[in-house]
Amino acid sequence: MFSIVELIGRKRDGQRLSDDEIRHVIEEFSADRMPAYQMSALAMAVFFRGLDDRETAAWTDAMLRSGRVLDFGVAGGPLASEPRQRFIDKHSTGGVGDKVSLPLAPAAAACGVLVPMVAGRGLGHTGGTIDKLEAIPGYDVALPADRFAAVIAEVGASIIGQTEEIAPADKRLYALRDVTATVESIPLICASIMSKKLAEGIAGLVLDIKVGPGAFMKTAADARELARRMVGVGREMGTRVVAFLTRMDEPLGRMVGNANEVVESIEVLEGRGAADLVELTEVLGGAMVELAHGVTFEEGRARIAKSLQDGTALARWDAMVRAQGGDLTRLPVPTGETPVLATQDGFVTDIDGREVGLVAVTLGAGRARREDPIDPAVGIRIDRKVGERVRAGEPLATIQHGARGAPPEAQVQRLLAAFSIGEAAPAERPLILERIG
Amino acid sequence: MFSIVELIGRKRDGQRLSDDEIRHVIEEFSADRMPAYQMSALAMAVFFRGLDDRETAAWTDAMLRSGRVLDFGVAGGPLASEPRQRFIDKHSTGGVGDKVSLPLAPAAAACGVLVPMVAGRGLGHTGGTIDKLEAIPGYDVALPADRFAAVIAEVGASIIGQTEEIAPADKRLYALRDVTATVESIPLICASIMSKKLAEGIAGLVLDIKVGPGAFMKTAADARELARRMVGVGREMGTRVVAFLTRMDEPLGRMVGNANEVVESIEVLEGRGAADLVELTEVLGGAMVELAHGVTFEEGRARIAKSLQDGTALARWDAMVRAQGGDLTRLPVPTGETPVLATQDGFVTDIDGREVGLVAVTLGAGRARREDPIDPAVGIRIDRKVGERVRAGEPLATIQHGARGAPPEAQVQRLLAAFSIGEAAPAERPLILERIG
Repeated sequence: MFSIVELIGRKRDGQRLSDDEIRHVIEEFSADRMPAYQMSALAMAVFFRGLDDRETAAWTDAMLRSGRVLDFGVAGGPLASEPRQRFIDKHSTGGVGDKVSLPLAPAAAACGVLVPMVAGRGLGHTGGTIDKLEAIPGYDVALPADRFAAVIAEVGASIIGQTEEIAPADKRLYALRDVTATVESIPLICASIMSKKLAEGIAGLVLDIKVGPGAFMKTAADARELARRMVGVGREMGTRVVAFLTRMDEPLGRMVGNANEVVESIEVLEGRGAADLVELTEVLGGAMVELAHGVTFEEGRARIAKSLQDGTALARWDAMVRAQGGDLTRLPVPTGETPVLATQDGFVTDIDGREVGLVAVTLGAGRARREDPIDPAVGIRIDRKVGERVRAGEPLATIQHGARGAPPEAQVQRLLAAFSIGEAAPAERPLILERIG
Repeated sequence: MFSIVELIGRKRDGQRLSDDEIRHVIEEFSADRMPAYQMSALAMAVFFRGLDDRETAAWTDAMLRSGRVLDFGVAGGPLASEPRQRFIDKHSTGGVGDKVSLPLAPAAAACGVLVPMVAGRGLGHTGGTIDKLEAIPGYDVALPADRFAAVIAEVGASIIGQTEEIAPADKRLYALRDVTATVESIPLICASIMSKKLAEGIAGLVLDIKVGPGAFMKTAADARELARRMVGVGREMGTRVVAFLTRMDEPLGRMVGNANEVVESIEVLEGRGAADLVELTEVLGGAMVELAHGVTFEEGRARIAKSLQDGTALARWDAMVRAQGGDLTRLPVPTGETPVLATQDGFVTDIDGREVGLVAVTLGAGRARREDPIDPAVGIRIDRKVGERVRAGEPLATIQHGARGAPPEAQVQRLLAAFSIGEAAPAERPLILERIG
C-alpha cells in the first residue's frame, strides 16, 4: 500500500500526508507492523516539519479509533436519549494546585451539562485529578463503561481514570516520544490530548492551557499555537473547542497535595475558596454551559457562579462521590505541620509554583517516576499568595506531614526560597490571559 | 553517565554534542544498550540540525573503533617498515560504468603508492568494484588481514571486499538509516564513508564525488558541501583528504556491466581506453601520488599517465589479480548481442546514465535488492558517447546477453529512450568540475 520509509521521507521533506497515509501509519504502528524506530524517526520529522490541522485531525482520529470510543447516543444505555450537544468536557495542560476539575464537573452538571470526564494522574511537579480523587477512601476511579454511563445519567458528571481501552495507540506513542525527545511537538501534543478526549464521545471541549515558567507551555506564543491547533483540529473533527490561556506561576488556590486539595475544592462548592480558583472554575464552567446550551458565555458563567452559591453544585459533588463509593468523612488528615516562616517584612511578589510542586513531590504528595506511591495526607498550604502582605516570623506556607513525619530542613529552605518578597505589592496580574475559539 | 534522551533533545534543539557524548552514543548503540528507536530519532535530528566537523570526526572515530582498525605500521608484518604517508586510498560516491578503481590501484602502486583498498558491492543503478572483480574466475575478494598485507607488500595494491570486522557500527547504523529516511544527511554520509576508509589505516584519501542526475549528489552545491565536510573531518582526524567533484551524466567509459568493465579496465592499463575513463584515472591517481610522495599534482598525474603507457601499471594489475587467485584467461563472455539502433541522424546530446544503469540491473548485471545474484557476462556497451555522431540505423548501444538470453523488447526501447539525439554537437562539458582540499 504505502511504503512507510517513503512517508517518513516525505514528511521529512516538508510535504503533507493524506488522511489515508496517516491512518495507515497509526494502524501499522498499533498492530506492531511498523517498528518503533520508524515511528520515532517520523515523530522527529513531525517535530521539525509539523502537521497541518487536517493531518493532525487524521492523526487524532486514527489514534482514537485504535481503542474504544464511547458513544452514549447509540449505546442504548441510560444516556441514549440525551442530545449529543450536552456532552462537554474540560482538559487542562496541568498546573500546580490545579484542582479545578473537582468543583467544575459537579457545577457544570448542576447547570445541565453532561460531563464524562476521563482524567489523568500526576507526574513531575504537577498533580493529577485521579490522584486527588483517590485521596477519598473508597472512591472508585476505575468504573466499567456501563457504570460510568449510569453515574453520568444519575448525577450529570463522573470522573474516572484512563483505561487501557482508550486510545491505546496514543499511550504507546507517548511512551515512545518520552524516550526519543519528541514530546515537545505541538501537533503531536494536540493529537494526544484530542484522541483521548474525543474517545469520550463529547460534542465540545473546554481547554485550559497554562502559560508560565511552571507550565508545559512556557510562552503565550506556544500556548496560543497549541490553542489554535486544538480549535482547528476540533473543527476538522466536528467538535467545538474553546481554549483559555491562563496564567500559571504561583499555585492555583492555597492547597497543593491531594486530600487537602479535595478539602479546598469542597470550599469552592460551598461558595467560598481562593479567588483565583473560583474564577477559573466559573470561567471554564461558563464556557461548558455555553457549549452545552448555546447561551452566551456570560450567561453560562453566571449559572456556574449561582450553582456554587446555592448548594446545587455541592449536592452534585456529594452524589457523584457517593455513586463512585467515596466516603468524605474519612479523608486522610496530616499528622503534623511545619510552618515556613518569612525572614523579612514585605509583600509576596512571586511564588515559583514549579518549585512548590517539586517540594510537594519530594514530601510524597506526587511522583517523580510513574511507579512512585503517593501519601494522600501530605501537602503544602500557601498561607500568603502573591500580593499579600507578610511580616518576618509569620508563615508564608505550611508543610502538612504524612506518614514520613516532619520534612528535612532542606525542603523547608527550598520552599522558603520559592517565595519572593518585595517592599511594594506587585501589580495585579490577570488569571485569564486570552480566549481562543 | 549521559542520558541518551537528553542528548537527542540537545541535538534536536541545535546544540553540539561533545566527543565523549558522541562516543557514548555510538558505543551504547553498538552494544545494543541504546535502542534503535532512539538512534533513528537522533539520526533524524542530525538530518535537520547537522553535525559540525568536530562532531562528525568524533562520530567517525567512534564508528571506526567499533571494529578492527588496520595498522600496518605496528602490525609487525611485511609492511611494518613502510612510512604511513605512502598508504593512500580512493573512494567514489558511485557512478554508472565507473570501473576506475581497477586500473587506478595498480597504476598508483606502479608509482610507489601503497593501496589497501576495501571496496563495496553494487546496489541500485550503480555497480560495485567487488562485483566487477568477482567476474574474474578465482579472484578472492575475502583475503584475511595477513594475506591482504602480504599482497600489498608484494604488489603495492590489493582490493578486497568489506568484512564484518570493519566499522560494524556503521553497518548497523546504515541499515537503520535506510529504513528511516535518514540516509540523506551529509555529516552521516561523511562519517559512514570515513569510518570505513580510515579503518584501512591510510594517511590520505582521494575522493571522487559524482555530481549529476544519475549520482547520489544531484547538485554541485550538495557535492561541494560533502567534499568540504570530508576534507574538514579528515583534518580533525589527521588524514589528508582531497576531493574532486566529477560529472556523472552519461556512463563513464563505454562499458556497463561486470566482465566487460574488467576488459575495458585492461584497455586503460594498456594505454588505450575511453578518454573520460583515462582522464579520471590520471586525475585521481595523480592526487594519490601527490599525497604519497609530496610532489605536485601535475607531477603525480604525469607519473600515472606514464605508468599506463609503459606497461608498469599493467604488470601490477596482473600481479595483483594473480596474487588474489584470479584467472583473466577465463573471463565470462556474452552469449550474444542485441544492438539498440538510432532512429534518426544526429549527434548524441545526452545519455541518461541512471537509466542505463537501471536497464543493466534489469538484465542481471546489477542488483535491485541486496540478495540478488549477478550474471557477470551481461552488460551494455555504449557505441556512441555524448558528442558523437550517429546515423539512423546505426547502433547507439549494444546489449550483451548472459544466461537469460536476449533482453525483452521493452528494455531495448528503454535503453533507446536513454539517448537524446540533436542536430548539432553539444558543447563540450568538463569531466572534472572542481578540486577541494
